[in-house]
Amino acid sequence: MSTPNIGVCYYPEHWPESQWADDARQMRALGISHVRIGEFAWANIEPADGQYAWDWLDRAVDSLANAGLTIIMGTPTACPPRWLVDKIDDLLPVDAQGHRRGFGSRRHYSTSSVDFLSAALTICTKMLERYGDHAAVGGWQLDNEFGCHDTTLCYSPAALRAFHTWLRARYDNIDALNTAWGNVFWSQTYARFEDVGLPVAVTETTPAHRLASQRFSSDQMVAFSEAQRALVVQHARESAWTTHNFMGNFVDFDHFKLAKHLDVATWDSYPLGFLDQSWFDDETKARYRRTGHPDWAAFHHDLYRAVCQGRCGVMEQQPGAVNWAYSNAQPANGMVRLWSWEAVAHGAELVSYFRWRQAPFAQEQMHAGLLRPDNQPANAHVEVAQFSKELDRLSLEDRAQSRVALVFDYEAAWMMRIQPQQHSYDALAVAMAYYSAARTQGVDIDIVPPDANLDGYALVMLPCLPHVSTTLIGQLQDGDMQMICGPRTGSKTDELSIPPALAPGALQSLLPAKMVTMDAMRDGVIAGIDEQPRDRYVYQWLEQLDTQLQPLYRTYDGRGLLYQHGRCRYVNACVSDAMLTDVVAAACDDAHITRTTLPTDVRITRRGKYTIAVNYGNTVCRLDTAHDYVIGGPRIAAHDVVVWKST
Amino acid sequence: MSTPNIGVCYYPEHWPESQWADDARQMRALGISHVRIGEFAWANIEPADGQYAWDWLDRAVDSLANAGLTIIMGTPTACPPRWLVDKIDDLLPVDAQGHRRGFGSRRHYSTSSVDFLSAALTICTKMLERYGDHAAVGGWQLDNEFGCHDTTLCYSPAALRAFHTWLRARYDNIDALNTAWGNVFWSQTYARFEDVGLPVAVTETTPAHRLASQRFSSDQMVAFSEAQRALVVQHARESAWTTHNFMGNFVDFDHFKLAKHLDVATWDSYPLGFLDQSWFDDETKARYRRTGHPDWAAFHHDLYRAVCQGRCGVMEQQPGAVNWAYSNAQPANGMVRLWSWEAVAHGAELVSYFRWRQAPFAQEQMHAGLLRPDNQPANAHVEVAQFSKELDRLSLEDRAQSRVALVFDYEAAWMMRIQPQQHSYDALAVAMAYYSAARTQGVDIDIVPPDANLDGYALVMLPCLPHVSTTLIGQLQDGDMQMICGPRTGSKTDELSIPPALAPGALQSLLPAKMVTMDAMRDGVIAGIDEQPRDRYVYQWLEQLDTQLQPLYRTYDGRGLLYQHGRCRYVNACVSDAMLTDVVAAACDDAHITRTTLPTDVRITRRGKYTIAVNYGNTVCRLDTAHDYVIGGPRIAAHDVVVWKST
Amino acid sequence: MSTPNIGVCYYPEHWPESQWADDARQMRALGISHVRIGEFAWANIEPADGQYAWDWLDRAVDSLANAGLTIIMGTPTACPPRWLVDKIDDLLPVDAQGHRRGFGSRRHYSTSSVDFLSAALTICTKMLERYGDHAAVGGWQLDNEFGCHDTTLCYSPAALRAFHTWLRARYDNIDALNTAWGNVFWSQTYARFEDVGLPVAVTETTPAHRLASQRFSSDQMVAFSEAQRALVVQHARESAWTTHNFMGNFVDFDHFKLAKHLDVATWDSYPLGFLDQSWFDDETKARYRRTGHPDWAAFHHDLYRAVCQGRCGVMEQQPGAVNWAYSNAQPANGMVRLWSWEAVAHGAELVSYFRWRQAPFAQEQMHAGLLRPDNQPANAHVEVAQFSKELDRLSLEDRAQSRVALVFDYEAAWMMRIQPQQHSYDALAVAMAYYSAARTQGVDIDIVPPDANLDGYALVMLPCLPHVSTTLIGQLQDGDMQMICGPRTGSKTDELSIPPALAPGALQSLLPAKMVTMDAMRDGVIAGIDEQPRDRYVYQWLEQLDTQLQPLYRTYDGRGLLYQHGRCRYVNACVSDAMLTDVVAAACDDAHITRTTLPTDVRITRRGKYTIAVNYGNTVCRLDTAHDYVIGGPRIAAHDVVVWKST
Repeated sequence: MSTPNIGVCYYPEHWPESQWADDARQMRALGISHVRIGEFAWANIEPADGQYAWDWLDRAVDSLANAGLTIIMGTPTACPPRWLVDKIDDLLPVDAQGHRRGFGSRRHYSTSSVDFLSAALTICTKMLERYGDHAAVGGWQLDNEFGCHDTTLCYSPAALRAFHTWLRARYDNIDALNTAWGNVFWSQTYARFEDVGLPVAVTETTPAHRLASQRFSSDQMVAFSEAQRALVVQHARESAWTTHNFMGNFVDFDHFKLAKHLDVATWDSYPLGFLDQSWFDDETKARYRRTGHPDWAAFHHDLYRAVCQGRCGVMEQQPGAVNWAYSNAQPANGMVRLWSWEAVAHGAELVSYFRWRQAPFAQEQMHAGLLRPDNQPANAHVEVAQFSKELDRLSLEDRAQSRVALVFDYEAAWMMRIQPQQHSYDALAVAMAYYSAARTQGVDIDIVPPDANLDGYALVMLPCLPHVSTTLIGQLQDGDMQMICGPRTGSKTDELSIPPALAPGALQSLLPAKMVTMDAMRDGVIAGIDEQPRDRYVYQWLEQLDTQLQPLYRTYDGRGLLYQHGRCRYVNACVSDAMLTDVVAAACDDAHITRTTLPTDVRITRRGKYTIAVNYGNTVCRLDTAHDYVIGGPRIAAHDVVVWKST
Repeated sequence: MSTPNIGVCYYPEHWPESQWADDARQMRALGISHVRIGEFAWANIEPADGQYAWDWLDRAVDSLANAGLTIIMGTPTACPPRWLVDKIDDLLPVDAQGHRRGFGSRRHYSTSSVDFLSAALTICTKMLERYGDHAAVGGWQLDNEFGCHDTTLCYSPAALRAFHTWLRARYDNIDALNTAWGNVFWSQTYARFEDVGLPVAVTETTPAHRLASQRFSSDQMVAFSEAQRALVVQHARESAWTTHNFMGNFVDFDHFKLAKHLDVATWDSYPLGFLDQSWFDDETKARYRRTGHPDWAAFHHDLYRAVCQGRCGVMEQQPGAVNWAYSNAQPANGMVRLWSWEAVAHGAELVSYFRWRQAPFAQEQMHAGLLRPDNQPANAHVEVAQFSKELDRLSLEDRAQSRVALVFDYEAAWMMRIQPQQHSYDALAVAMAYYSAARTQGVDIDIVPPDANLDGYALVMLPCLPHVSTTLIGQLQDGDMQMICGPRTGSKTDELSIPPALAPGALQSLLPAKMVTMDAMRDGVIAGIDEQPRDRYVYQWLEQLDTQLQPLYRTYDGRGLLYQHGRCRYVNACVSDAMLTDVVAAACDDAHITRTTLPTDVRITRRGKYTIAVNYGNTVCRLDTAHDYVIGGPRIAAHDVVVWKST
Repeated sequence: MSTPNIGVCYYPEHWPESQWADDARQMRALGISHVRIGEFAWANIEPADGQYAWDWLDRAVDSLANAGLTIIMGTPTACPPRWLVDKIDDLLPVDAQGHRRGFGSRRHYSTSSVDFLSAALTICTKMLERYGDHAAVGGWQLDNEFGCHDTTLCYSPAALRAFHTWLRARYDNIDALNTAWGNVFWSQTYARFEDVGLPVAVTETTPAHRLASQRFSSDQMVAFSEAQRALVVQHARESAWTTHNFMGNFVDFDHFKLAKHLDVATWDSYPLGFLDQSWFDDETKARYRRTGHPDWAAFHHDLYRAVCQGRCGVMEQQPGAVNWAYSNAQPANGMVRLWSWEAVAHGAELVSYFRWRQAPFAQEQMHAGLLRPDNQPANAHVEVAQFSKELDRLSLEDRAQSRVALVFDYEAAWMMRIQPQQHSYDALAVAMAYYSAARTQGVDIDIVPPDANLDGYALVMLPCLPHVSTTLIGQLQDGDMQMICGPRTGSKTDELSIPPALAPGALQSLLPAKMVTMDAMRDGVIAGIDEQPRDRYVYQWLEQLDTQLQPLYRTYDGRGLLYQHGRCRYVNACVSDAMLTDVVAAACDDAHITRTTLPTDVRITRRGKYTIAVNYGNTVCRLDTAHDYVIGGPRIAAHDVVVWKST
């Protein structure tokens, strides 16, 4: 992969064999080059212990290959067959109340079951031995949506034993653990690693305990993924690449770690389903119910591009209404094409739709496909055809590095969950707010991990980074970039304690101020700013700094708001979108980053020599007539896409 | 029974024996002819295993009989005594998390406990042997409120074993089950029936699995009821009838199946308690807090008349505030009389109040009776006296068949719960909306089961019937009735899959259209219709049809709404009450069904030669002065009832 | 103690020993005389079974003593060490679903574990043997926040056994229990005490069962506390006093019983954290988010003064934002001083801050202290210094008896929880509404237990007393005080049944009326009063009385509201604050109690010769210029305190 490819998710096992060849032919006709199969087919491949049924899959693979499709083969470990549940005692995961979570859906395995891991690697090996050399199998997807359905954490005895091993590796001796966790508090001191439980107690356990449990669980997921990846390396032909299909709004494990050795990070983009289940308020959810939020998919594209060092794609693109949200909205006409173009704009090597044909049975029967269950084209079909033709007209290069970097950290998200101090404080929501503030000004953004090399960035944003590593601080100190630090920056150590010098910790070298306390506000409460327009206000969080710096504003009751020292801006509160946009705009200007005035709900992104504009709004907007348009023109309709050549 | 009778629920075991005769005398004085007793008295009858204490009940029965009362004897199986819990290991039900549900209230039994069933049938037999021939025992109520407190489903090992037996009987072989459930999806294939669990898994189990579990659990309840009924047939005198007291807003088992061989279906009518706990919005709940919703009781009367082929009654009529809602409102003055008349209007053979005297102790001490705990008349007493006298003045015939049929299906309700697609989609709420739309126009309605004979109906409404049987389709095709189909009609097979030809399935012969996708809206979101009054709009659900038919309206954004082909109307959305009323009115007109303009909150119902009008509103309304009034006159006060002879 | 003292909570085990002396010196410099230590240090004192490490604590005690501080030593039983969990099988508490509640926070013990009680008393004895005679140890705090984190009730087998013993002691024979509980209802009759379970069943258990379980659980807590107290009496020097630090908004056990033999009742005053978690509506929470509700702390001071027969104090005063509310607000400037003065005004002998220095680690790292984690003064430091100096200028006597008594009963609170009839009916909220109605008129109030001697009170308020004892009725009948009875007064017997004569039971001698039924309204529903201002209305609850008395008002729909007979007023509804204030004002006038007109959000309290005024509002207010001001003057700023000499 590399040029943007169009793909689709397909389940030959769901359809009569007689249909396979025609399906493959139709895929090709639509411009599809890649097809993902196999990731839920364990029971079809190994219907009983040690009895393998390869024939059907051989024929399915050949059907697809014969049509010229490249196959992305999914390892089937997300769905252990029913017979395996009987065979392996501790296969099923256990919830925080100690209940076994049953068979009958998917992801019913514990990453700490040694016997399950062994069985999983065996089926992977078998698949790889069979198809690793197949010319049509271009890549391997490991498992499916790791962590989905709250399966990152497990509370089984096996998980507890593995946690002890992990603790011993991290802390070496129990005194170190006791010190790191502050166990002198409330007589929580342990004498042995074996005395530590998983963090379920009468009331909240110590934050470091919960952080350790989250890190351990994340590492278990990473180890399982890595073990599968190693098998691909061992058994598949050299050109075969590995990927995993990550999710949206999901931070339960460290995606940077898991993707470290993958070739490409793909993700499953469901802009409507996730809007319905997200933190956005009811008004926003109503406004964007048929389009998704204008920055949501873009944020995730940029995030997953970061997760795998620049290589990303969409493995499952929502093609219509889904089945799993509370209220499953139908995409507005044009949105599937828009989302596809947006993926490409943000660097996707693959835009793959889920799924080829809507299945009339089982859990996802109400999930749209490109074909209806009666084999007729569904709404998205025509949009994919259009997208495919348009894509052929462009010659896309890789995305260049952006001038703005936004640091995102999975551990930060865990820290905020463990100690929110304001019940709806959410690292992902905060990060996306900063992202929006830049993107509404037409600025391209790279999301980067906390250990990224920041060379070449003119503006670095740290929306929510409670723990700032020494390396990062060094880069910030040594560089000449503009910086915007959000609230709580540097407020925690690596063990989720308060740093000795208080927040923002070592960043005080760049911002001479100490965060000494904060005022958290209930949802719905805001604090206005005198003589500022009413869309400038504080909500949720306002920090008090001990500093000689003069604040840029004061709240109606006199509290300092927004500080700047040299090239470092510190946003000591959750501020309204309009106010945050002011901050980011000023920083961009100081960083000599060109901003563009855009209509509300229109966004632009640059890839290579092209600029791609999308209109999430439901009204026609006018763009600059001077552009050299290659798709569409200066009149951008509701839910439309236009592309011009950058000058 | 047959002429409307007045009854009351009585617990002689709660009161000193010295009071019994006087209670009975007072009942008779109030016009009460029937008295239900015994249904919670197992521990009083059999205080220890095999030790029966009949004396008190003999004397209680005689006390009541001597006063000329007819006794409805309840089998006491809803309350197994404490000693039975020790004796039978698997008696207590188990919840979905695997916890045993304890003793200390009622309904603490699993319908899958073989030993419990045996013990239950033994106590029934003993009671029948003792009172089956008693001249004063006119009928038998089996158990009490089957399914109350979420007791239809049980997750015990015994329930699982019984489920396996049920599955084997339904599917014969495991391959058939795998195919029917679509188990190829997510590797859910089973090798043996014994491998199937009850549907609790990491995430949702397959819809067909949940539907099977619901059907099985319903069948278990039916089997238990039938076993008791068979004993009544065997042991009681021939004229003794059987009944069960069903509930409001309750669809957990198939009432048509359970009532199939009962003589009369009675139900427990608590218009205020159920309003508080229902799906109605806060405004509606506030408006009708002391009256109940104007169509709620009527709907249930018509539903339970359907459940038992025309024979229905009220076993427990709310006489004042109850104890079990979140906020227990006091009925407005006049409502107990109004509810009583309304029951009669809809065909009730019995209007029985719960309870004779408010008990000062235990769980229901805050539940009003006809007498206060201090033995003085409670608020409802005078209303019952009035009702009783008024009733004597009329000579009521059975209700005639209505010209409108509304099809209601318990399995449809389960299907909507299992796959709502919009989280608050509720089959009962949808059915009641269609019912209201007709009833506000003064039209009488028969609710009918999905396998009803539709002869004689000029209009048939299918508000929510995802699975339409071949028989029903045949009747609709062959008849000449008008039809109104609600959203999702024919959208599912009997195994909760999408039919090959898509919705509305075989109904496409009457409505040439395919439902290809839908747009579900969060609660609170609506879509208006251009140039229509603001009370015409769509909410919750809007389907896109693939059809040549022209829609009657389009939403503000151009989507088709309301389709008609010949005598079939298809409502492809949840539409506002005003809009639904338009649809039903038009269909009535086409069907030559006379409509009547009624004041808001006034409803009329015909029984035999009488028309009964009730006013749920709190203002006086004027009716036609030309009527031949037999109770009241053209001025109908707030919460008043008037009756006239139909012409 | 007796003169108001300033104290602080300190954890020497959290800090380097090198810091102890300086900490102590700084405490003294700030005016602190008392320091609480030790209450969470079990694992530090006994790191392994039977191995005691006293050295560090000896040195810590000496450090503090050397600085002239008086030590309040906490028994460390709230935090059993990890090794004890292994040693004692039934130590961990069990929740209502039967899950063990784990180690890893605090309060992880069951009061019914006999072995735990033994271990707890052993560590107490050891501490007392070591420090009981220490001259600097002035008092002993038993455990910490009994009942916190829902730990009053336990569902372990040991708890069940203890419950059986308790039941046998209360009822003597099982027939008495069956009668008292009304077990004839629903066949709930028991043959043996051993058959009774803890109250978890298919649906709600009988109210008397739940009340018994609550009483038993309360008694278990009381017994544990008393066993510790007996050890103090036995081992400590005679002048050592005992206390416990109770909580806010907390009624799970009977505080009157637990404090009966304590010397002083202290409590933990967190006005912001508890506002966030309380029953107040969103508007009130937003308005007082940085101050607390103006009557909340005062109510609790008066309550805890009652709990220990006049002796009270604050053990933990909120000094800044806390960590445990949903949204942790920062106190407005001045509030820590204001809260301190308010405590003193209401009779506190101790105002102790939690905590000396904010800990940078563990669960409470976001909980402010008087010092920041970096050892600099936190916001509250300057306010405490000011308070300390001001306090020195006054010579405070004990509070005199007030003229108004408000009866509060913990059992009443349990009864309301068990049978609310309206889901948000809350005894504490109702009591506080009556308290506010009097306090906004400048009236001092004594809260008294239901068995208090009412001599000397001119007005007695019974806001929520479902069970009124014979003794109390006797006092009310024999006295000449004015009385205000709230809804539900006398509506229950001691076993939570309806009294034979109906509510208000024996109080009918003072108010010739019977409560015959009630109308409960959903939250948000109100019923207005014709021709009254719009802030006079009924909400939540309206009773219908059977009486010859004429109501003072009628609701818009004609229902009687507010009754008076001689010196007894009966408030038969939940009425708005404005209306309740009218009632209390009229009663005060009839009782010849002087009322004072106060600005909104200003409150006054008298202690000895001083009147202390506090301003919870955010605007300056004017007070009477004629006062003899000793602190501040007639201009009372936002969040300010002024004191004048009463004339």
